Amino acid sequence: MDSGWSLGRWQVTLYAVPNLPLIRAGDDLGSLICERASEDGFVFADGDVLVVASKVVSKAEGLLLRLADITPSTRAYELAQATGRDPRLCEVILQESAEVLGTNGRMIITRHRLGFHCTNAGVDRSNISPEYGAFAITLPRDPDASALAIRDVIRARAGRDVAVIISDSFGLPDRYGAIGLSVGLAGIRHVEERDMDNLFGQPTHSDLMLVDALAAAAMVLMGETGEARPVVVIRGVPYTRDESASFRGLLV
Amino acid sequence: MDSGWSLGRWQVTLYAVPNLPLIRAGDDLGSLICERASEDGFVFADGDVLVVASKVVSKAEGLLLRLADITPSTRAYELAQATGRDPRLCEVILQESAEVLGTNGRMIITRHRLGFHCTNAGVDRSNISPEYGAFAITLPRDPDASALAIRDVIRARAGRDVAVIISDSFGLPDRYGAIGLSVGLAGIRHVEERDMDNLFGQPTHSDLMLVDALAAAAMVLMGETGEARPVVVIRGVPYTRDESASFRGLLV
Repeated sequence: MDSGWSLGRWQVTLYAVPNLPLIRAGDDLGSLICERASEDGFVFADGDVLVVASKVVSKAEGLLLRLADITPSTRAYELAQATGRDPRLCEVILQESAEVLGTNGRMIITRHRLGFHCTNAGVDRSNISPEYGAFAITLPRDPDASALAIRDVIRARAGRDVAVIISDSFGLPDRYGAIGLSVGLAGIRHVEERDMDNLFGQPTHSDLMLVDALAAAAMVLMGETGEARPVVVIRGVPYTRDESASFRGLLV
Repeated sequence: MDSGWSLGRWQVTLYAVPNLPLIRAGDDLGSLICERASEDGFVFADGDVLVVASKVVSKAEGLLLRLADITPSTRAYELAQATGRDPRLCEVILQESAEVLGTNGRMIITRHRLGFHCTNAGVDRSNISPEYGAFAITLPRDPDASALAIRDVIRARAGRDVAVIISDSFGLPDRYGAIGLSVGLAGIRHVEERDMDNLFGQPTHSDLMLVDALAAAAMVLMGETGEARPVVVIRGVPYTRDESASFRGLLV
């Protein structure tokens, strides 16, 4: 079934790049994206926005940590006792945090070293197998740089000027589930200034957090963890291109 | 320019219904949506999800309050002193709140009577003119019922079975700007249970807050306040239909 509409300022399309393999340390994520999109008949256009789940960026960047290699500090043992979590995982969370703000059941509420508040400093854990043991994975070291690297590969391979947003899922205090928000960006201004009419028909100015709205939108196709379909291309979004954009500008 | 892709599980399209008039009390929002979409050549399909900005729902439901008609309580005067806001606006905020959690500068942090935390109980104000004075507008009385009414009109007029989500913008404590989240829904289950592989290739179960992701996605076209393009149709989203769905299930 074809959509039947033409793309314009009234329409936006989200496309999940299919058949990406499980990403491993050292993979060139930008090239894999170009290859799988091309195999699917997808042609990048100038102005496309790629939203990439942080988890696959971290995997490509080799940020899996074997918990057996981690030596917990005294503070990590205290956090483990308060939350019922593995002290080695707590140690990784501490190393990723600028500040621990408190605990709530098993959750450790942190200010991440990148500046935003999040649960467990964005650290996930999983057991691969009894043989390999338990691993933790952290957010990318510098998500703006990760986004820029993917943008550069797509410019080199596909000849197109795209924006890249690295997303992660964030919990909201009074709702179940999580929402996708940005943690890094390249090629797109961190805030979009828009002039429009308010509900009384008066012209008003608004600062739209477009990059966060795009990260949240991508979650519709990604799913919560973004692992099955970790790369979503969004087409038809008017945005301000910015070569020196930084995620830092989004934070209060 | 045509999108060139076929809709499927890898693609989602957002379409803003164009040329909606400024909504007035008593307007039949569902009928206006059908008329403007039809004039634009858009044909609703079963399974489409409509995201409707709460502001236009409130306007259609006549929820504009003239501040000159409001008599502030003692508590409203106290809040006005703490925040530098109009005591009559503070009175409206109090009436819309189950609980005032605190203040932060000019912001009044509330638990809304509908159960969620939000700034100023979702009450907006604006001056229409010196002649008409200042008005406040509240969230819909029962957003699930508002969503159901729009869904019923579209079923009656277009013969299609769609889901409807009423959205509002919510601030996040450590980021500039706001994100779109749901405040009411009809025809779509409040939580989407998905089975997928995690980043280690293991099958996992996740509860996706799809309705909030869709509300956030619509903001890409709506803009922050959702007033210029207050209705966005999202096509291609797999979701669980639920005739008795309620927003309440989303809240912790």
